[in-house]
Amino acid sequence: MTCPFASLFRLGITTIHRTPLASGTRSNEPKRLFVAKNTKARTSASSSSSSNENTHNGTMSAKSRFTSSSFTDETITTENTTKKKSARIALVQLASTSSKEENIENMLARVEEALSSSSSSSSSSSSGDKPLKLAEEEKKIVDIVVLPEMWNCPYGNEFFAPFAEDVVLDRGSSVAEEEGRGSTSPSFDAMRKIAKEKKVVLFGGSIPTRKDGKLFNTCFVFDSDGALIATHHKMHLFDVDIPDGITFFESKTLTAGDAVTIANTKDFGKFGVGICFDMRFPEYARACALEGCIGMIYPGAFNTVTGPLHWALLQRCRAVDNQMFVATCSPARVEGASYQAHGDSSVYGPFGEKLNDKELEEKPGVVYADLDLNEVVKRRSAMPLNKQRRLSETYELCAKKEENV
Amino acid sequence: MTCPFASLFRLGITTIHRTPLASGTRSNEPKRLFVAKNTKARTSASSSSSSNENTHNGTMSAKSRFTSSSFTDETITTENTTKKKSARIALVQLASTSSKEENIENMLARVEEALSSSSSSSSSSSSGDKPLKLAEEEKKIVDIVVLPEMWNCPYGNEFFAPFAEDVVLDRGSSVAEEEGRGSTSPSFDAMRKIAKEKKVVLFGGSIPTRKDGKLFNTCFVFDSDGALIATHHKMHLFDVDIPDGITFFESKTLTAGDAVTIANTKDFGKFGVGICFDMRFPEYARACALEGCIGMIYPGAFNTVTGPLHWALLQRCRAVDNQMFVATCSPARVEGASYQAHGDSSVYGPFGEKLNDKELEEKPGVVYADLDLNEVVKRRSAMPLNKQRRLSETYELCAKKEENV
Repeated sequence: MTCPFASLFRLGITTIHRTPLASGTRSNEPKRLFVAKNTKARTSASSSSSSNENTHNGTMSAKSRFTSSSFTDETITTENTTKKKSARIALVQLASTSSKEENIENMLARVEEALSSSSSSSSSSSSGDKPLKLAEEEKKIVDIVVLPEMWNCPYGNEFFAPFAEDVVLDRGSSVAEEEGRGSTSPSFDAMRKIAKEKKVVLFGGSIPTRKDGKLFNTCFVFDSDGALIATHHKMHLFDVDIPDGITFFESKTLTAGDAVTIANTKDFGKFGVGICFDMRFPEYARACALEGCIGMIYPGAFNTVTGPLHWALLQRCRAVDNQMFVATCSPARVEGASYQAHGDSSVYGPFGEKLNDKELEEKPGVVYADLDLNEVVKRRSAMPLNKQRRLSETYELCAKKEENV
Repeated sequence: MTCPFASLFRLGITTIHRTPLASGTRSNEPKRLFVAKNTKARTSASSSSSSNENTHNGTMSAKSRFTSSSFTDETITTENTTKKKSARIALVQLASTSSKEENIENMLARVEEALSSSSSSSSSSSSGDKPLKLAEEEKKIVDIVVLPEMWNCPYGNEFFAPFAEDVVLDRGSSVAEEEGRGSTSPSFDAMRKIAKEKKVVLFGGSIPTRKDGKLFNTCFVFDSDGALIATHHKMHLFDVDIPDGITFFESKTLTAGDAVTIANTKDFGKFGVGICFDMRFPEYARACALEGCIGMIYPGAFNTVTGPLHWALLQRCRAVDNQMFVATCSPARVEGASYQAHGDSSVYGPFGEKLNDKELEEKPGVVYADLDLNEVVKRRSAMPLNKQRRLSETYELCAKKEENV
């Protein structure tokens, strides 16, 4: 592995630009680093300034070796010098109906409510469980909002096509570019609008989207100025057939995405974005951590079979393995729905500690948590897994099929 | 990635032989596949037939890409056709003293006891918690025995050198080759002897070993005929400095191993072998699963700070992620010792289910569990993570240092 660009070339990557570094400021000047066409892995930057030369406007993509070089204390420390030191996150656990309009209205109302009634006990503005009416400045105590998977429709293969929205733009497009698109993507526009108006980073759970005749399970992430900073198409589709448990084949209707997605927020640094079944793959969170993420955000709809067994386990272990925050946001359970969601939206810290202010279980509501971003530095310093991890080559073994080569 | 041998060549691997496939029979004829010198990854086979041309006698080593090709139902099903369908495992949680002789005697006595008093409720010979005296045939209800990390000495940097044994032979050596070595390696010989006498597979926890002037934390695995089938040098050393928690630097005295280790048992298939801190790295268990392992065995000595938080979490998540068995064996806690072990030796199944017959907590004793090996096939079939996992390249992102290349 002497040539770090070998894998880039193998994937046919022809254009290499400079990735904008995370910072509190923005530039409209293109920065050069890794922008790539037709690649299997990509990062999204808070800057909207990158190249428009491919079909993914501003896509920040790259392919290279899975090394530990970027997973260092130094990276975190350096990046945080220009960022805020803590973030309050709100997970909005929504119950969806079979009316998209209702679901959008409900989302907007519940997010507004979440922003005006942050109940975390560690807030100086908090007074216990009682909803607060805060002045405009005080409302900004919530920094990040997360929505559930498939929040604009019931969860089921029969709903994905009729509820899907045609979202032409992908990641990195400027706010100006996104204006005037409301008519074709009401869910997208509602998310962008509230992120911008309320000045919050919004991890938009997921909605079904349509592109080039294919359906995707898609998470849009908006920065606090409304800029789209990440678009994640669920990469591992939910196909299971558990005897006496649950049978579901998302792949009957959906197409899998092909990339790890990172949202680079201007104030809080990088977060990996996965959807539900993506959480089952440790490689996914690891790839994000190696790229400097301080957290993973997983909208997800585990069910009543795998939820009690694996939902908390997986998120907590991803947090501990990668010494990062892990937040999940589930739909609430809807009586009579064909798919029964587990609920239990949660936030874990980089030592595996649960940070929720409360347990929602399967009910609609909001969970708050305060993320002390220095905890990531502290944990990675106290137990330097980053330094102790061996190069990825070390973990590789012979593949049986190579016997025949 | 068109040349599967590219990575082999990069590592300077010059000799390629055939890996013995798992089977119930053995051959003394060398088979050709991947045996390599100076490689970073290796597998150990139940056969002792491989090349002796390098310093690791019979080392079965290979280096290649980390693909999903070998992690298939077919692999498991095929391999199990020549193997037994279930295995009873006994985890022997030992309390060590500062006398190696005492520790060896105690180990032998406790293993004998474990084999004669299997208390698993699913055993037809069992009668609850009451120790049983079984006839020779009935004693064989235990198939696999696991010992704790550093069972022949107290856990502490000051003990590793004086307790270390000079073990010249490495993996794959024949029983004949191992004879007559008792004088320099009493712990090694005691383990081999009891495995052979009692006809059990023995995962020998770990002991400090010395080789080429370096100290290692080493696990030897013996098949039920006493053949050494794997030698694992702890690959990730325990170096932590947790404020108000625990400070320990294993690297002050020990040298890290450089390879993932797999023990290929003749009756039960392949098990990955890691030691303690190795469990913190999801890549490690994943590498073993991709190579066809149906379980991981981790002797380990988590402490009273990280034990309650992470010990069960990590082992259960490794099991769920890889749909395999995960067994851990800890030392018992010794009052007054400088290092306080967590205890809680456990076995989890491939859906994350705890299989222990009881909870030892920090006390000395034996935990039994019955492993239904078909559970691995069943779980991998119901939720085919193996098929849904994307190629490793997909998870790779740009490493920052490559900006400068």
